[in-house]
Amino acid sequence: MYRRRVEFAETDAAGMVHFSMFFRYMEESEHAFWRAAGLNIWESGENLSWPRISATFDFKAPLKFQDEFEVHTEMGAVTRSTIQWNHTVKRGDVIAGAGSVTAVCVKKNADGSMKSAEIPGELISRLRRAPGA
Amino acid sequence: MYRRRVEFAETDAAGMVHFSMFFRYMEESEHAFWRAAGLNIWESGENLSWPRISATFDFKAPLKFQDEFEVHTEMGAVTRSTIQWNHTVKRGDVIAGAGSVTAVCVKKNADGSMKSAEIPGELISRLRRAPGA
Amino acid sequence: MYRRRVEFAETDAAGMVHFSMFFRYMEESEHAFWRAAGLNIWESGENLSWPRISATFDFKAPLKFQDEFEVHTEMGAVTRSTIQWNHTVKRGDVIAGAGSVTAVCVKKNADGSMKSAEIPGELISRLRRAPGA
Amino acid sequence: MYRRRVEFAETDAAGMVHFSMFFRYMEESEHAFWRAAGLNIWESGENLSWPRISATFDFKAPLKFQDEFEVHTEMGAVTRSTIQWNHTVKRGDVIAGAGSVTAVCVKKNADGSMKSAEIPGELISRLRRAPGA
Repeated sequence: MYRRRVEFAETDAAGMVHFSMFFRYMEESEHAFWRAAGLNIWESGENLSWPRISATFDFKAPLKFQDEFEVHTEMGAVTRSTIQWNHTVKRGDVIAGAGSVTAVCVKKNADGSMKSAEIPGELISRLRRAPGA
Repeated sequence: MYRRRVEFAETDAAGMVHFSMFFRYMEESEHAFWRAAGLNIWESGENLSWPRISATFDFKAPLKFQDEFEVHTEMGAVTRSTIQWNHTVKRGDVIAGAGSVTAVCVKKNADGSMKSAEIPGELISRLRRAPGA
Repeated sequence: MYRRRVEFAETDAAGMVHFSMFFRYMEESEHAFWRAAGLNIWESGENLSWPRISATFDFKAPLKFQDEFEVHTEMGAVTRSTIQWNHTVKRGDVIAGAGSVTAVCVKKNADGSMKSAEIPGELISRLRRAPGA
Repeated sequence: MYRRRVEFAETDAAGMVHFSMFFRYMEESEHAFWRAAGLNIWESGENLSWPRISATFDFKAPLKFQDEFEVHTEMGAVTRSTIQWNHTVKRGDVIAGAGSVTAVCVKKNADGSMKSAEIPGELISRLRRAPGA
Protein backbone atom coordinates (compact mmCIF):
# COMPACT_ATOMS: atom_id res chain seq x y z
CA MET A 1 0.00 0.00 0.00
CA TYR A 2 1.47 3.26 -1.21
CA ARG A 3 0.67 6.47 0.60
CA ARG A 4 1.47 10.08 -0.01
CA ARG A 5 0.10 13.59 -0.20
CA VAL A 6 -1.13 15.68 -3.13
CA GLU A 7 1.46 18.27 -4.11
CA PHE A 8 0.50 21.72 -5.39
CA ALA A 9 1.98 21.27 -8.87
CA GLU A 10 -0.34 18.26 -9.32
CA THR A 11 -3.50 20.37 -9.08
CA ASP A 12 -5.08 22.30 -11.94
CA ALA A 13 -7.17 25.44 -12.30
CA ALA A 14 -10.32 23.47 -11.47
CA GLY A 15 -8.88 23.20 -7.95
CA MET A 16 -8.32 19.45 -7.96
CA VAL A 17 -5.67 16.94 -9.01
CA HIS A 18 -5.34 16.87 -12.80
CA PHE A 19 -6.79 13.63 -14.14
CA SER A 20 -3.51 12.62 -15.82
CA MET A 21 -1.81 12.52 -12.41
CA PHE A 22 -3.72 9.40 -11.39
CA PHE A 23 -1.78 7.50 -14.03
CA ARG A 24 1.42 8.65 -12.35
CA TYR A 25 0.08 7.69 -8.94
CA MET A 26 -0.66 4.18 -10.24
CA GLU A 27 2.87 3.87 -11.60
CA GLU A 28 4.43 5.15 -8.39
CA SER A 29 2.50 2.55 -6.44
CA GLU A 30 3.47 -0.25 -8.83
CA HIS A 31 7.14 0.68 -8.44
CA ALA A 32 6.72 0.69 -4.66
CA PHE A 33 5.17 -2.79 -5.00
CA TRP A 34 8.29 -4.02 -6.83
CA ARG A 35 10.47 -2.57 -4.08
CA ALA A 36 8.32 -4.22 -1.40
CA ALA A 37 9.04 -7.51 -3.19
CA GLY A 38 12.76 -6.79 -2.93
CA LEU A 39 12.90 -6.05 -6.66
CA ASN A 40 13.78 -3.08 -8.79
CA ILE A 41 11.74 -2.66 -11.97
CA TRP A 42 14.60 -0.64 -13.44
CA GLU A 43 17.02 -3.57 -13.04
CA SER A 44 14.59 -6.45 -13.24
CA GLY A 45 16.75 -8.55 -15.51
CA GLU A 46 19.33 -8.25 -18.23
CA ASN A 47 18.10 -5.65 -20.73
CA LEU A 48 14.51 -6.10 -19.58
CA SER A 49 12.20 -3.12 -19.66
CA TRP A 50 8.47 -2.69 -18.98
CA PRO A 51 6.66 -0.31 -21.33
CA ARG A 52 2.96 0.13 -20.74
CA ILE A 53 0.56 -1.19 -23.37
CA SER A 54 -2.74 -0.03 -21.90
CA ALA A 55 -3.97 2.12 -19.05
CA THR A 56 -7.42 2.97 -17.81
CA PHE A 57 -8.86 4.87 -14.87
CA ASP A 58 -12.34 5.69 -13.57
CA PHE A 59 -12.58 8.88 -11.54
CA LYS A 60 -14.98 8.86 -8.59
CA ALA A 61 -14.11 11.73 -6.25
CA PRO A 62 -11.61 14.56 -6.57
CA LEU A 63 -8.36 14.83 -4.64
CA LYS A 64 -7.27 18.28 -3.60
CA PHE A 65 -4.03 19.98 -2.57
CA GLN A 66 -2.44 18.37 0.49
CA ASP A 67 -4.97 15.52 0.65
CA GLU A 68 -3.37 12.36 1.92
CA PHE A 69 -4.24 9.33 -0.15
CA GLU A 70 -3.40 5.68 -0.53
CA VAL A 71 -2.99 3.54 -3.62
CA HIS A 72 -3.88 -0.10 -3.14
CA THR A 73 -2.19 -2.16 -5.81
CA GLU A 74 -2.45 -5.81 -6.77
CA MET A 75 -1.41 -7.99 -9.66
CA GLY A 76 -4.22 -8.96 -11.98
CA ALA A 77 -3.89 -11.15 -15.06
CA VAL A 78 -0.38 -12.39 -15.83
CA THR A 79 0.50 -13.77 -19.25
CA ARG A 80 3.77 -14.99 -20.75
CA SER A 81 5.00 -11.45 -21.19
CA THR A 82 2.48 -9.09 -19.58
CA ILE A 83 1.39 -8.12 -16.07
CA GLN A 84 -1.82 -6.26 -15.36
CA TRP A 85 -1.69 -4.03 -12.31
CA ASN A 86 -4.96 -3.08 -10.61
CA HIS A 87 -5.10 0.02 -8.43
CA THR A 88 -7.59 1.70 -6.14
CA VAL A 89 -6.92 5.23 -4.94
CA LYS A 90 -8.48 6.12 -1.58
CA ARG A 91 -8.64 9.21 0.59
CA GLY A 92 -9.61 7.79 3.95
CA ASP A 93 -12.71 5.73 3.24
CA VAL A 94 -13.53 7.63 0.07
CA ILE A 95 -12.61 5.97 -3.21
CA ALA A 96 -11.10 8.62 -5.45
CA GLY A 97 -10.97 6.20 -8.35
CA ALA A 98 -9.73 2.89 -9.65
CA GLY A 99 -7.79 1.79 -12.66
CA SER A 100 -5.52 -0.66 -14.29
CA VAL A 101 -2.23 -0.58 -16.18
CA THR A 102 -0.84 -3.41 -18.29
CA ALA A 103 2.90 -3.57 -18.79
CA VAL A 104 4.76 -5.81 -21.21
CA CYS A 105 8.17 -7.31 -20.53
CA VAL A 106 10.50 -6.45 -23.41
CA LYS A 107 14.10 -7.18 -24.17
CA LYS A 108 16.08 -4.28 -25.52
CA ASN A 109 18.39 -5.14 -28.42
CA ALA A 110 21.73 -3.48 -29.00
CA ASP A 111 20.21 -1.34 -31.79
CA GLY A 112 17.58 0.06 -29.42
CA SER A 113 14.70 -1.99 -30.78
CA MET A 114 12.50 -3.92 -28.33
CA LYS A 115 10.93 -7.36 -28.48
CA SER A 116 8.45 -8.85 -26.04
CA ALA A 117 10.09 -11.42 -23.78
CA GLU A 118 9.01 -14.15 -21.39
CA ILE A 119 8.77 -12.87 -17.84
CA PRO A 120 11.32 -14.73 -15.68
CA GLY A 121 9.41 -17.20 -13.46
CA GLU A 122 11.41 -16.27 -10.37
CA LEU A 123 10.37 -12.65 -10.83
CA ILE A 124 6.66 -13.51 -10.89
CA SER A 125 7.11 -15.68 -7.80
CA ARG A 126 8.71 -12.87 -5.89
CA LEU A 127 6.05 -10.36 -6.94
CA ARG A 128 3.35 -12.81 -5.80
CA ARG A 129 5.01 -13.07 -2.40
CA ALA A 130 5.38 -9.31 -1.97
CA PRO A 131 4.08 -7.87 1.30
CA GLY A 132 0.61 -6.60 0.55
CA ALA A 133 0.32 -8.87 -2.50
CA MET B 1 -6.67 17.73 -35.92
CA TYR B 2 -4.14 18.80 -33.31
CA ARG B 3 -0.46 18.76 -34.12
CA ARG B 4 2.65 19.40 -32.12
CA ARG B 5 6.09 18.14 -31.20
CA VAL B 6 7.33 16.07 -28.26
CA GLU B 7 9.12 18.28 -25.73
CA PHE B 8 12.10 17.04 -23.73
CA ALA B 9 10.39 17.26 -20.32
CA GLU B 10 7.75 14.83 -21.63
CA THR B 11 10.25 12.01 -22.11
CA ASP B 12 11.43 9.62 -19.40
CA ALA B 13 14.55 7.62 -18.65
CA ALA B 14 13.37 4.87 -21.02
CA GLY B 15 14.01 7.40 -23.79
CA MET B 16 10.39 7.80 -24.88
CA VAL B 17 7.34 9.87 -23.97
CA HIS B 18 6.08 8.93 -20.52
CA PHE B 19 2.80 7.01 -20.83
CA SER B 20 0.88 9.52 -18.68
CA MET B 21 1.60 12.26 -21.22
CA PHE B 22 -0.75 10.70 -23.76
CA PHE B 23 -3.63 11.60 -21.46
CA ARG B 24 -2.47 15.22 -21.59
CA TYR B 25 -2.13 15.06 -25.37
CA MET B 26 -5.75 13.82 -25.59
CA GLU B 27 -6.95 16.67 -23.42
CA GLU B 28 -4.98 19.26 -25.38
CA SER B 29 -6.56 18.01 -28.57
CA GLU B 30 -10.06 18.05 -27.07
CA HIS B 31 -9.59 21.65 -25.98
CA ALA B 32 -8.37 22.54 -29.49
CA PHE B 33 -11.52 20.84 -30.82
CA TRP B 34 -13.67 23.14 -28.65
CA ARG B 35 -11.78 26.14 -29.95
CA ALA B 36 -12.21 24.97 -33.55
CA ALA B 37 -15.96 24.96 -32.82
CA GLY B 38 -15.72 28.57 -31.69
CA LEU B 39 -16.18 27.47 -28.07
CA ASN B 40 -14.13 27.68 -24.91
CA ILE B 41 -14.42 24.70 -22.57
CA TRP B 42 -13.39 26.98 -19.73
CA GLU B 43 -16.37 29.31 -20.31
CA SER B 44 -18.80 26.85 -21.81
CA GLY B 45 -21.79 28.08 -19.83
CA GLU B 46 -22.67 29.65 -16.54
CA ASN B 47 -20.83 27.72 -13.82
CA LEU B 48 -20.39 24.69 -16.07
CA SER B 49 -17.29 22.57 -15.71
CA TRP B 50 -16.16 19.30 -17.33
CA PRO B 51 -14.39 16.89 -14.98
CA ARG B 52 -13.27 13.62 -16.47
CA ILE B 53 -14.97 10.41 -15.31
CA SER B 54 -12.98 7.85 -17.24
CA ALA B 55 -9.94 7.69 -19.44
CA THR B 56 -8.28 4.89 -21.31
CA PHE B 57 -5.38 4.57 -23.74
CA ASP B 58 -3.74 1.74 -25.68
CA PHE B 59 -0.09 2.28 -26.50
CA LYS B 60 1.12 0.99 -29.88
CA ALA B 61 4.42 2.70 -30.73
CA PRO B 62 6.66 5.03 -28.74
CA LEU B 63 7.05 8.73 -29.39
CA LYS B 64 10.48 10.23 -28.84
CA PHE B 65 11.95 13.66 -28.21
CA GLN B 66 11.15 16.12 -31.00
CA ASP B 67 8.86 13.71 -32.85
CA GLU B 68 6.04 15.56 -34.56
CA PHE B 69 2.68 13.95 -34.01
CA GLU B 70 -1.01 14.50 -34.61
CA VAL B 71 -4.01 13.79 -32.43
CA HIS B 72 -7.18 13.01 -34.35
CA THR B 73 -10.17 13.66 -32.14
CA GLU B 74 -13.86 12.98 -32.58
CA MET B 75 -16.94 12.95 -30.41
CA GLY B 76 -18.17 9.48 -29.50
CA ALA B 77 -21.23 8.72 -27.39
CA VAL B 78 -23.12 11.72 -26.06
CA THR B 79 -25.60 11.36 -23.18
CA ARG B 80 -27.66 13.91 -21.26
CA SER B 81 -24.60 15.03 -19.31
CA THR B 82 -21.54 13.27 -20.74
CA ILE B 83 -19.40 13.43 -23.86
CA GLN B 84 -17.01 10.71 -24.87
CA TRP B 85 -13.97 11.92 -26.81
CA ASN B 86 -12.11 9.43 -29.00
CA HIS B 87 -8.52 10.11 -29.95
CA THR B 88 -5.88 8.58 -32.20
CA VAL B 89 -2.28 9.72 -31.89
CA LYS B 90 -0.21 9.39 -35.06
CA ARG B 91 3.40 10.05 -36.01
CA GLY B 92 3.20 10.23 -39.78
CA ASP B 93 1.47 6.98 -40.80
CA VAL B 94 2.41 5.21 -37.56
CA ILE B 95 -0.29 4.93 -34.92
CA ALA B 96 1.32 5.69 -31.58
CA GLY B 97 -1.86 4.80 -29.75
CA ALA B 98 -5.55 5.43 -29.33
CA GLY B 99 -7.77 6.21 -26.40
CA SER B 100 -10.88 7.75 -25.09
CA VAL B 101 -11.82 10.21 -22.37
CA THR B 102 -15.35 10.73 -21.02
CA ALA B 103 -16.17 14.10 -19.47
CA VAL B 104 -19.27 14.96 -17.49
CA CYS B 105 -20.94 18.35 -17.55
CA VAL B 106 -21.35 19.62 -13.99
CA LYS B 107 -22.76 22.75 -12.46
CA LYS B 108 -20.71 24.27 -9.68
CA ASN B 109 -22.71 25.42 -6.70
CA ALA B 110 -21.80 28.43 -4.58
CA ASP B 111 -20.44 26.12 -1.85
CA GLY B 112 -18.02 24.49 -4.31
CA SER B 113 -19.97 21.25 -4.66
CA MET B 114 -20.73 19.94 -8.14
CA LYS B 115 -23.81 18.31 -9.64
CA SER B 116 -24.12 16.74 -13.08
CA ALA B 117 -26.07 18.97 -15.44
CA GLU B 118 -27.77 18.65 -18.81
CA ILE B 119 -25.44 19.66 -21.61
CA PRO B 120 -26.90 22.72 -23.39
CA GLY B 121 -28.29 21.59 -26.78
CA GLU B 122 -26.74 24.52 -28.61
CA LEU B 123 -23.33 23.51 -27.31
CA ILE B 124 -23.64 19.97 -28.69
CA SER B 125 -24.81 21.35 -32.04
CA ARG B 126 -21.81 23.59 -32.30
CA LEU B 127 -19.39 20.80 -31.34
CA ARG B 128 -20.98 18.58 -34.01
CA ARG B 129 -20.43 21.27 -36.62
CA ALA B 130 -16.80 21.87 -35.63
CA PRO B 131 -14.26 21.77 -38.47
CA GLY B 132 -12.82 18.30 -38.47
CA ALA B 133 -15.81 16.92 -36.56
CA MET C 1 13.78 18.27 6.32
CA TYR C 2 11.78 16.81 3.46
CA ARG C 3 12.63 13.40 2.11
CA ARG C 4 11.37 11.37 -0.77
CA ARG C 5 12.32 9.28 -3.76
CA VAL C 6 12.65 10.13 -7.45
CA GLU C 7 9.67 8.85 -9.41
CA PHE C 8 9.97 7.57 -12.97
CA ALA C 9 7.83 10.28 -14.54
CA GLU C 10 10.27 12.85 -13.14
CA THR C 11 13.17 11.55 -15.23
CA ASP C 12 13.89 12.52 -18.82
CA ALA C 13 15.52 10.89 -21.82
CA ALA C 14 18.95 11.91 -20.54
CA GLY C 15 18.36 9.36 -17.77
CA MET C 16 18.19 11.84 -14.90
CA VAL C 17 15.64 14.04 -13.16
CA HIS C 18 14.48 16.84 -15.47
CA PHE C 19 15.92 20.15 -14.28
CA SER C 20 12.46 21.74 -13.88
CA MET C 21 11.57 19.13 -11.25
CA PHE C 22 13.96 20.67 -8.74
CA PHE C 23 11.68 23.70 -8.60
CA ARG C 24 8.83 21.37 -7.66
CA TYR C 25 10.98 19.64 -5.06
CA MET C 26 11.76 23.03 -3.50
CA GLU C 27 8.07 23.89 -3.36
CA GLU C 28 7.14 20.52 -1.88
CA SER C 29 9.69 21.03 0.85
CA GLU C 30 8.49 24.57 1.57
CA HIS C 31 4.93 23.32 1.95
CA ALA C 32 6.15 20.58 4.30
CA PHE C 33 7.94 23.31 6.28
CA TRP C 34 4.63 25.17 6.69
CA ARG C 35 2.98 21.98 7.86
CA ALA C 36 5.82 21.32 10.34
CA ALA C 37 5.04 24.78 11.75
CA GLY C 38 1.41 23.73 12.20
CA LEU C 39 0.40 25.96 9.30
CA ASN C 40 -1.23 25.43 5.93
CA ILE C 41 0.02 27.67 3.13
CA TRP C 42 -3.29 27.13 1.36
CA GLU C 43 -5.25 28.58 4.28
CA SER C 44 -2.67 30.91 5.72
CA GLY C 45 -5.06 33.78 6.28
CA GLU C 46 -8.21 35.28 4.88
CA ASN C 47 -7.80 35.50 1.11
CA LEU C 48 -4.02 35.30 1.36
CA SER C 49 -2.09 33.59 -1.37
CA TRP C 50 1.66 33.17 -2.07
CA PRO C 51 2.65 33.48 -5.71
CA ARG C 52 6.33 33.12 -6.48
CA ILE C 53 8.23 36.16 -7.75
CA SER C 54 11.63 34.63 -8.36
CA ALA C 55 13.23 31.21 -8.38
CA THR C 56 16.78 30.08 -8.96
CA PHE C 57 18.63 26.78 -8.78
CA ASP C 58 22.21 25.62 -9.32
CA PHE C 59 22.59 22.01 -10.39
CA LYS C 60 25.56 20.10 -9.01
CA ALA C 61 24.93 16.36 -9.41
CA PRO C 62 22.17 14.45 -11.14
CA LEU C 63 19.43 12.53 -9.39
CA LYS C 64 18.26 9.32 -11.00
CA PHE C 65 15.18 7.11 -10.87
CA GLN C 66 14.46 5.79 -7.38
CA ASP C 67 17.22 7.84 -5.75
CA GLU C 68 16.26 8.88 -2.24
CA PHE C 69 16.96 12.53 -1.55
CA GLU C 70 16.42 15.19 1.06
CA VAL C 71 15.56 18.85 0.72
CA HIS C 72 16.89 21.04 3.52
CA THR C 73 14.85 24.22 3.68
CA GLU C 74 15.24 27.40 5.68
CA MET C 75 13.81 30.88 5.65
CA GLY C 76 16.13 33.52 4.24
CA ALA C 77 15.33 37.21 3.93
CA VAL C 78 11.88 38.25 5.12
CA THR C 79 10.42 41.61 4.11
CA ARG C 80 7.03 43.22 4.77
CA SER C 81 5.39 41.02 2.16
CA THR C 82 7.95 38.49 0.92
CA ILE C 83 9.69 35.39 2.21
CA GLN C 84 12.78 33.94 0.62
CA TRP C 85 13.12 30.19 0.97
CA ASN C 86 16.56 28.62 0.63
CA HIS C 87 16.89 24.97 -0.25
CA THR C 88 19.63 22.38 -0.56
CA VAL C 89 18.90 19.05 -2.23
CA LYS C 90 21.05 16.16 -1.06
CA ARG C 91 21.41 12.49 -1.96
CA GLY C 92 23.20 11.08 1.05
CA ASP C 93 26.27 13.28 1.40
CA VAL C 94 26.18 14.44 -2.21
CA ILE C 95 24.74 17.87 -2.90
CA ALA C 96 22.52 17.57 -5.96
CA GLY C 97 21.96 21.30 -6.02
CA ALA C 98 20.82 24.37 -4.16
CA GLY C 99 18.39 27.13 -4.87
CA SER C 100 16.06 29.74 -3.61
CA VAL C 101 12.44 30.74 -4.17
CA THR C 102 10.92 34.06 -3.14
CA ALA C 103 7.17 34.17 -2.53
CA VAL C 104 5.06 37.28 -2.04
CA CYS C 105 2.05 37.44 0.24
CA VAL C 106 -0.93 38.76 -1.72
CA LYS C 107 -4.54 39.44 -0.88
CA LYS C 108 -7.04 38.28 -3.45
CA ASN C 109 -9.81 40.75 -4.19
CA ALA C 110 -13.35 39.74 -5.06
CA ASP C 111 -12.69 40.50 -8.74
CA GLY C 112 -9.78 38.07 -8.84
CA SER C 113 -7.06 40.73 -8.81
CA MET C 114 -4.21 40.45 -6.30
CA LYS C 115 -2.38 43.05 -4.23
CA SER C 116 0.71 42.50 -2.10
CA ALA C 117 -0.13 42.41 1.59
CA GLU C 118 1.71 42.61 4.88
CA ILE C 119 2.59 39.16 6.19
CA PRO C 120 0.79 38.59 9.50
CA GLY C 121 3.35 38.80 12.32
CA GLU C 122 2.02 35.72 14.06
CA LEU C 123 2.58 33.72 10.89
CA ILE C 124 6.25 34.70 10.68
CA SER C 125 6.70 33.86 14.37
CA ARG C 126 5.28 30.41 13.88
CA LEU C 127 7.40 29.76 10.78
CA ARG C 128 10.51 30.82 12.72
CA ARG C 129 9.66 28.35 15.46
CA ALA C 130 9.02 25.45 13.07
CA PRO C 131 10.85 22.21 13.85
CA GLY C 132 13.94 22.22 11.68
CA ALA C 133 13.80 26.01 11.27
CA MET D 1 10.58 33.36 -31.25
CA TYR D 2 8.62 30.46 -29.83
CA ARG D 3 4.88 30.72 -29.52
CA ARG D 4 2.23 28.50 -28.00
CA ARG D 5 -0.78 28.35 -25.74
CA VAL D 6 -1.12 27.46 -22.05
CA GLU D 7 -2.51 23.95 -21.64
CA PHE D 8 -4.86 23.01 -18.80
CA ALA D 9 -2.49 20.55 -17.13
CA GLU D 10 0.03 23.38 -16.78
CA THR D 11 -2.22 25.40 -14.47
CA ASP D 12 -2.53 24.90 -10.73
CA ALA D 13 -5.21 25.40 -8.09
CA ALA D 14 -4.32 29.10 -7.85
CA GLY D 15 -5.79 29.38 -11.36
CA MET D 16 -2.55 30.25 -13.14
CA VAL D 17 0.41 28.48 -14.73
CA HIS D 18 2.50 26.72 -12.10
CA PHE D 19 5.79 28.55 -11.62
CA SER D 20 7.88 25.48 -12.49
CA MET D 21 6.35 25.44 -15.99
CA PHE D 22 8.23 28.58 -16.99
CA PHE D 23 11.44 26.57 -16.81
CA ARG D 24 9.93 24.12 -19.28
CA TYR D 25 8.80 26.97 -21.54
CA MET D 26 12.36 28.32 -21.55
CA GLU D 27 13.72 24.91 -22.51
CA GLU D 28 11.12 24.42 -25.24
CA SER D 29 12.09 27.76 -26.72
CA GLU D 30 15.80 26.98 -26.55
CA HIS D 31 15.23 23.71 -28.39
CA ALA D 32 13.19 25.57 -31.02
CA PHE D 33 16.13 27.98 -31.34
CA TRP D 34 18.46 25.06 -32.11
CA ARG D 35 16.03 23.80 -34.73
CA ALA D 36 15.78 27.27 -36.27
CA ALA D 37 19.57 27.12 -36.62
CA GLY D 38 19.23 23.83 -38.47
CA LEU D 39 20.60 21.97 -35.46
CA ASN D 40 19.29 19.31 -33.12
CA ILE D 41 20.36 19.61 -29.50
CA TRP D 42 19.78 15.89 -29.10
CA GLU D 43 22.30 15.05 -31.85
CA SER D 44 24.58 18.04 -31.56
CA GLY D 45 27.78 16.07 -31.81
CA GLU D 46 29.24 12.69 -31.04
CA ASN D 47 28.23 11.80 -27.48
CA LEU D 48 27.60 15.45 -26.61
CA SER D 49 24.87 16.30 -24.15
CA TRP D 50 23.75 19.59 -22.54
CA PRO D 51 22.78 19.30 -18.87
CA ARG D 52 21.69 22.51 -17.19
CA ILE D 53 23.93 23.96 -14.47
CA SER D 54 21.83 26.92 -13.40
CA ALA D 55 18.39 28.34 -14.03
CA THR D 56 16.64 31.44 -12.80
CA PHE D 57 13.33 33.16 -13.50
CA ASP D 58 11.59 36.32 -12.31
CA PHE D 59 7.80 36.20 -12.43
CA LYS D 60 6.01 39.42 -13.41
CA ALA D 61 2.45 38.57 -14.47
CA PRO D 62 0.50 35.32 -14.41
CA LEU D 63 -0.39 33.26 -17.45
CA LYS D 64 -3.75 31.51 -17.44
CA PHE D 65 -5.37 28.60 -19.23
CA GLN D 66 -5.45 29.06 -23.00
CA ASP D 67 -3.40 32.26 -22.94
CA GLU D 68 -1.22 32.55 -26.01
CA PHE D 69 2.32 33.55 -25.21
CA GLU D 70 5.72 33.99 -26.82
CA VAL D 71 9.17 33.17 -25.56
CA HIS D 72 11.90 35.43 -26.92
CA THR D 73 15.24 33.66 -26.62
CA GLU D 74 18.79 34.79 -27.23
CA MET D 75 22.26 33.54 -26.48
CA GLY D 76 23.99 35.33 -23.63
CA ALA D 77 27.49 34.59 -22.39
CA VAL D 78 29.32 31.76 -24.14
CA THR D 79 32.38 30.14 -22.58
CA ARG D 80 34.56 27.23 -23.67
CA SER D 81 31.93 24.74 -22.54
CA THR D 82 28.81 26.67 -21.51
CA ILE D 83 26.04 28.64 -23.17
CA GLN D 84 23.75 30.99 -21.28
CA TRP D 85 20.27 31.31 -22.76
CA ASN D 86 18.23 34.41 -21.92
CA HIS D 87 14.47 34.29 -22.25
CA THR D 88 11.56 36.70 -21.99
CA VAL D 89 8.01 35.34 -21.83
CA LYS D 90 5.33 37.69 -23.18
CA ARG D 91 1.56 37.61 -23.50
CA GLY D 92 0.90 40.28 -26.08
CA ASP D 93 2.66 43.35 -24.74
CA VAL D 94 2.65 42.08 -21.16
CA ILE D 95 5.88 40.60 -19.86
CA ALA D 96 4.98 37.47 -17.90
CA GLY D 97 8.55 37.06 -16.75
CA ALA D 98 12.16 36.68 -17.76
CA GLY D 99 14.89 34.23 -16.94
CA SER D 100 18.05 32.54 -17.91
CA VAL D 101 19.33 28.97 -18.17
CA THR D 102 22.98 27.97 -18.47
CA ALA D 103 23.80 24.65 -20.10
CA VAL D 104 27.14 22.93 -20.16
CA CYS D 105 28.42 20.85 -23.04
CA VAL D 106 29.47 17.43 -21.78
CA LYS D 107 30.88 14.34 -23.39
CA LYS D 108 29.36 11.09 -22.25
CA ASN D 109 31.84 8.32 -21.63
CA ALA D 110 31.13 4.65 -22.25
CA ASP D 111 30.63 4.06 -18.51
CA GLY D 112 27.89 6.73 -18.36
CA SER D 113 30.03 9.36 -16.66
CA MET D 114 30.13 12.86 -18.11
CA LYS D 115 32.95 15.37 -18.55
CA SER D 116 32.66 18.98 -19.68
CA ALA D 117 33.82 19.41 -23.27
CA GLU D 118 34.75 22.25 -25.59
CA ILE D 119 31.79 23.39 -27.62
CA PRO D 120 32.51 22.78 -31.33
CA GLY D 121 33.21 26.15 -33.00
CA GLU D 122 31.01 25.36 -35.99
CA LEU D 123 28.08 24.78 -33.64
CA ILE D 124 28.44 28.19 -32.00
CA SER D 125 28.70 29.83 -35.43
CA ARG D 126 25.49 28.22 -36.58
CA LEU D 127 23.65 29.17 -33.39
CA ARG D 128 24.83 32.77 -33.81
CA ARG D 129 23.45 32.81 -37.34
CA ALA D 130 20.08 31.33 -36.36
CA PRO D 131 16.99 33.22 -37.56
CA GLY D 132 15.92 35.42 -34.69
CA ALA D 133 19.40 35.26 -33.13
